[in-house]
Amino acid sequence: MPHTTGVRKRKVAVLGASGTVGQRFISLLAGHPWFEISALTTSDAKAGKRYGDVTPWLLGEDMPPEVADMRVETTRGDLDAEICFSALPSEAAEEWEAALAKAGHHVFSNVKTHRMDDDVPLILAEVNPEHANALDVQRRNRGWTGSIVTNGNCSAITFTLAAAPLHLAFGIEQVVVTTLQALSGAGYPGVPSLDALDNVIPFIGEEEEKMEQETKKFLGSWDGTSFKDAEFPFSAHCNRVSVRDGHTVTVSAALRGRPGLREVTLAMRAFKGRPQQLGLPSAPKQPIVVRDEQDRPQPMRDRMAGNGMSVVVGRVREDPVLGLKFVVLGHNTIRGAAGASVLNAELLAAEGCLGA
Amino acid sequence: MPHTTGVRKRKVAVLGASGTVGQRFISLLAGHPWFEISALTTSDAKAGKRYGDVTPWLLGEDMPPEVADMRVETTRGDLDAEICFSALPSEAAEEWEAALAKAGHHVFSNVKTHRMDDDVPLILAEVNPEHANALDVQRRNRGWTGSIVTNGNCSAITFTLAAAPLHLAFGIEQVVVTTLQALSGAGYPGVPSLDALDNVIPFIGEEEEKMEQETKKFLGSWDGTSFKDAEFPFSAHCNRVSVRDGHTVTVSAALRGRPGLREVTLAMRAFKGRPQQLGLPSAPKQPIVVRDEQDRPQPMRDRMAGNGMSVVVGRVREDPVLGLKFVVLGHNTIRGAAGASVLNAELLAAEGCLGA
Amino acid sequence: MPHTTGVRKRKVAVLGASGTVGQRFISLLAGHPWFEISALTTSDAKAGKRYGDVTPWLLGEDMPPEVADMRVETTRGDLDAEICFSALPSEAAEEWEAALAKAGHHVFSNVKTHRMDDDVPLILAEVNPEHANALDVQRRNRGWTGSIVTNGNCSAITFTLAAAPLHLAFGIEQVVVTTLQALSGAGYPGVPSLDALDNVIPFIGEEEEKMEQETKKFLGSWDGTSFKDAEFPFSAHCNRVSVRDGHTVTVSAALRGRPGLREVTLAMRAFKGRPQQLGLPSAPKQPIVVRDEQDRPQPMRDRMAGNGMSVVVGRVREDPVLGLKFVVLGHNTIRGAAGASVLNAELLAAEGCLGA
Amino acid sequence: MPHTTGVRKRKVAVLGASGTVGQRFISLLAGHPWFEISALTTSDAKAGKRYGDVTPWLLGEDMPPEVADMRVETTRGDLDAEICFSALPSEAAEEWEAALAKAGHHVFSNVKTHRMDDDVPLILAEVNPEHANALDVQRRNRGWTGSIVTNGNCSAITFTLAAAPLHLAFGIEQVVVTTLQALSGAGYPGVPSLDALDNVIPFIGEEEEKMEQETKKFLGSWDGTSFKDAEFPFSAHCNRVSVRDGHTVTVSAALRGRPGLREVTLAMRAFKGRPQQLGLPSAPKQPIVVRDEQDRPQPMRDRMAGNGMSVVVGRVREDPVLGLKFVVLGHNTIRGAAGASVLNAELLAAEGCLGA
Repeated sequence: MPHTTGVRKRKVAVLGASGTVGQRFISLLAGHPWFEISALTTSDAKAGKRYGDVTPWLLGEDMPPEVADMRVETTRGDLDAEICFSALPSEAAEEWEAALAKAGHHVFSNVKTHRMDDDVPLILAEVNPEHANALDVQRRNRGWTGSIVTNGNCSAITFTLAAAPLHLAFGIEQVVVTTLQALSGAGYPGVPSLDALDNVIPFIGEEEEKMEQETKKFLGSWDGTSFKDAEFPFSAHCNRVSVRDGHTVTVSAALRGRPGLREVTLAMRAFKGRPQQLGLPSAPKQPIVVRDEQDRPQPMRDRMAGNGMSVVVGRVREDPVLGLKFVVLGHNTIRGAAGASVLNAELLAAEGCLGA
Repeated sequence: MPHTTGVRKRKVAVLGASGTVGQRFISLLAGHPWFEISALTTSDAKAGKRYGDVTPWLLGEDMPPEVADMRVETTRGDLDAEICFSALPSEAAEEWEAALAKAGHHVFSNVKTHRMDDDVPLILAEVNPEHANALDVQRRNRGWTGSIVTNGNCSAITFTLAAAPLHLAFGIEQVVVTTLQALSGAGYPGVPSLDALDNVIPFIGEEEEKMEQETKKFLGSWDGTSFKDAEFPFSAHCNRVSVRDGHTVTVSAALRGRPGLREVTLAMRAFKGRPQQLGLPSAPKQPIVVRDEQDRPQPMRDRMAGNGMSVVVGRVREDPVLGLKFVVLGHNTIRGAAGASVLNAELLAAEGCLGA
Repeated sequence: MPHTTGVRKRKVAVLGASGTVGQRFISLLAGHPWFEISALTTSDAKAGKRYGDVTPWLLGEDMPPEVADMRVETTRGDLDAEICFSALPSEAAEEWEAALAKAGHHVFSNVKTHRMDDDVPLILAEVNPEHANALDVQRRNRGWTGSIVTNGNCSAITFTLAAAPLHLAFGIEQVVVTTLQALSGAGYPGVPSLDALDNVIPFIGEEEEKMEQETKKFLGSWDGTSFKDAEFPFSAHCNRVSVRDGHTVTVSAALRGRPGLREVTLAMRAFKGRPQQLGLPSAPKQPIVVRDEQDRPQPMRDRMAGNGMSVVVGRVREDPVLGLKFVVLGHNTIRGAAGASVLNAELLAAEGCLGA
Repeated sequence: MPHTTGVRKRKVAVLGASGTVGQRFISLLAGHPWFEISALTTSDAKAGKRYGDVTPWLLGEDMPPEVADMRVETTRGDLDAEICFSALPSEAAEEWEAALAKAGHHVFSNVKTHRMDDDVPLILAEVNPEHANALDVQRRNRGWTGSIVTNGNCSAITFTLAAAPLHLAFGIEQVVVTTLQALSGAGYPGVPSLDALDNVIPFIGEEEEKMEQETKKFLGSWDGTSFKDAEFPFSAHCNRVSVRDGHTVTVSAALRGRPGLREVTLAMRAFKGRPQQLGLPSAPKQPIVVRDEQDRPQPMRDRMAGNGMSVVVGRVREDPVLGLKFVVLGHNTIRGAAGASVLNAELLAAEGCLGA
């Protein structure tokens, strides 16, 4: 697909358009050079109303005026869209994602429902674009003309993007991480303010499990018939803190051969993937920004690096236990959710996996 | 020392009385059954003024009326007090703590200056009360009639109190921790609100070093002539979060013999120390409270456990890397600072180490 | 009723016990010298379960252990309690408060349902205790053996308590107020953290109306057959800010005769009411604390004045438009809700309005 | 001045470049079509260092790369710049603003120092552009070839911009306002987080006086020889709340002739000024955005309206005391500070007041 203007834009739907991730999809898709929003779906109760009237818009910038006047629809199999970006609640995702794929839509899902399915690729565009090859098997298995591609949980993506060049260059042997996750990750209304103010919540349902499993699928391989997980012990502590956007992750890791800090930093700084090679519209120039200041990354200062599509690493230093430690920050609703899905769609469009 | 009322109270001074830790000392000493505040010191500029006029009181409850009208003094060698609780800035501590001990005062310091000195005990009352034996050597070495006893850094104390029964029962082999530390730990004015609001700061100067070193001294031994550190690799990631009081610490640990979760929990729940045996006024009934709920401890809900003198542990579970993980929370300016010093003074008074 | 110990305690129920106001009722009633909690009600779904298991406890101190093990009940007419403190949702209040009063219970309600009823007193114990005389009419009208007494909205109470001595001494001609209200006023889960963090919400449903109406009923009179409102133009702007507890109210007021600032301050400082005369257990010594510092009152520093039962006034100064301006702060869930109801019950018990 | 590209850009300096307002100046001037940053000044201690190294960058977006590498200078009379945007601390402003104007620079100051001077215009570009005529008198009086133009205090600007069409169309008789001001208005480090978290501070030094005085100068007239203040009683209550950016102001106002709400709303919606007529680069299309939702404006959702250069009005309704009430929100460091100064400079450049 040529990256020029003037080409016909593909019609895209946003499923679950009024939630926090749905809003990010809209914000990222408004004015997109390749895609054009043709449908917005929400729960039944809102169907037929103006998007602007049913959505408690939570992003700092204004709601894009072109979507404010669109009428929201219920999710259904014959949406007028080639591509469906899904931010559905999990029950609705269970019901609709497969139905849409069967009906010929290309579903890029931010939902966990199909992430660990045997024939559904979980793709982080810079890390494992070759997992898209599983779509042939998926279509064959399921008799679909469309497809489902998932992106991962926000914490898994943030960690994996920083860890990928280290796994590639050296091999990860063991990892212990602690997350300090933003409130927007819990959606809206999500975390009550009486729980968030002057507090930390040291638990997020299923988050540690998702982070551990998805990371291993991301860093694993597709052998033509099945996915093979990367194998290393991984321990995650997941916490919610009083931050609007941006997940901070502290990482202690053992790498094979115990590389020096300089090698580690170089590997992260040099890392580029297919999105950078192809010059995809949403690809950040630097997937991993490494900062030298002793007190970075910080959510407030760094979450918008690369328009929210880069992760920012800092405090690369020796770990007395595992050898290496550092901090990584990612924007949870951009890089960790909607932006990752949009980049996946750009990648598959550019690679010709979505038809002409 | 009999724990009855009617006994003469010892006169105590609070050094550095107007800061956040100084305020906690005052709050804990007001109405204390054994101690009576006889002097408050602050920086020169404030000397001679009413305490109530020079102190931006930061605790939720009111300033104790009996101290509001006291005149603050500059720190000097002949303060009218047997015991001096020090919350001095480190330069002033350097200048005055030793001078006061030489002049016969018993200094209980919350400052780092002398913590790692060869003949200064770093005491956590439930954990290593026998380190007080070093005071004989200290007095002989230095020709003092008084003494200096230090407590530790707030993060070191919080972790160590939870870890002590595990080290005792099983032996710690390796530990990786991440802290989510409260704003009050940085003092006042401390962290600017523009840095704290909607943000995490993944760095606290010297905190990781202090936490690693002090923990090993706490859990080490005094052999009659010198301190011997506990020896195990320890890695700390220290972060500041938007919480007023209460440090949360996520812990991944390898224990010798890989005990089961039940054994670990029992060891923590059963743990008592000298303060509990002696029934010291500031001793919490349970030094370690273990909670079963999946989302506890939380700073807002748990920091006042045991009047702020207990640490609260939760989420005891298996760690895929090191074997054991859990979360521990402690009140950083009570258990982690002023309260720990007051408990140390009570302990040494009760044990007869401070004279009649 | 003699204020001695040893007297039989009255049994009290807390209706709607698991919400934020219900929790405050419990916190204030645990260990109360006159009252003993005999029943806790919540919504049907929780009936029969341990209170400790169904309540997301939100107060900093621990849940009183004696209530944690109580079984919650559904609200019903034959609760085993003389007095019912109601923190019911308004629909349930509609259904049950009158039924309970009919069945002989004395209902002290924190709910708006009956506040403006013609024969239901809206009482602020220091301000209009004589409105309790309306209970004779209420019982006669309705054929009840029990009764309903309401307290007011949190903002109305905070303002009225500060304004009462001014209205009494001088007469209020006009008032313009702006509130900065705490999150706990919206209950739990209440305000989503994504709305509260780094934000102000300049609207609280029906709050301005309630504040304007209830203040006039409080400051009005009972003439033996009906309530007569105080009459003055009153304008309220109500806002939600990121504060856990404590409503701040800025006040611009025109008083009859334009008294000087010193007279105003004296009137507020000298103000005492029946609760102070009777020495009621929950009565603060000073209903109105006036502070001279230029930057007080502040929620974090002043909300617990008088154990949360005093309001704190500051910045008394001239207003170029209306003559007088000041700031007043009250603890919204103590003085502004549960504490006001408990004080009303103490008042009526002491005055003999509840039977022996 | 033609608004075309290709024209020579004027060199501009930012004085006091590392503070919060200095940073906003830089953010607004980076890529400006008419201006080019040629000098950055800070306090002596930092002179000669990279701007990027001496500045704790506080804005969400990244520091513009073109300024990160500039060397900061001390403020001095011969800066290489036609226009100087001043965000100096007030002592430095006292020393340097006049010196720079004398030396031929056009100083656009955000500092209070000269705001109320008899021959210094205090300009809000949409409201009183004709006050620029005072510059002739200023230059004559003072023998300057340059000039000083000031913008106002952030609260004064926010209120005045909303009030101007009302004063113009109807005449303001009386106003009572309460502000809920953002933390960034206090600069950096500014408000300590221990004061900001879970708190309101009901006092900002000199803010009420500035707001009252400056508003009257803005809405007053220049008669060729002196400024004549608008005359109406104005009462302000100023408060600091836990919000990063965006001042909320509640307004109760008496307008001459008591216009209806519809007339008021129309007057605000229809309001345009010289910046809109001239199409200045920083001029928002709508200086005043009026919203109909009952819970707007909110800082988090509305502060970036018109790129932070619009004020947003909501809740226009009847006031029982003064007749009219509404809420207005403005971005305090953009519209209320740096952006207002940049717009003033654009205005005077376009009007030919700064030479060719």
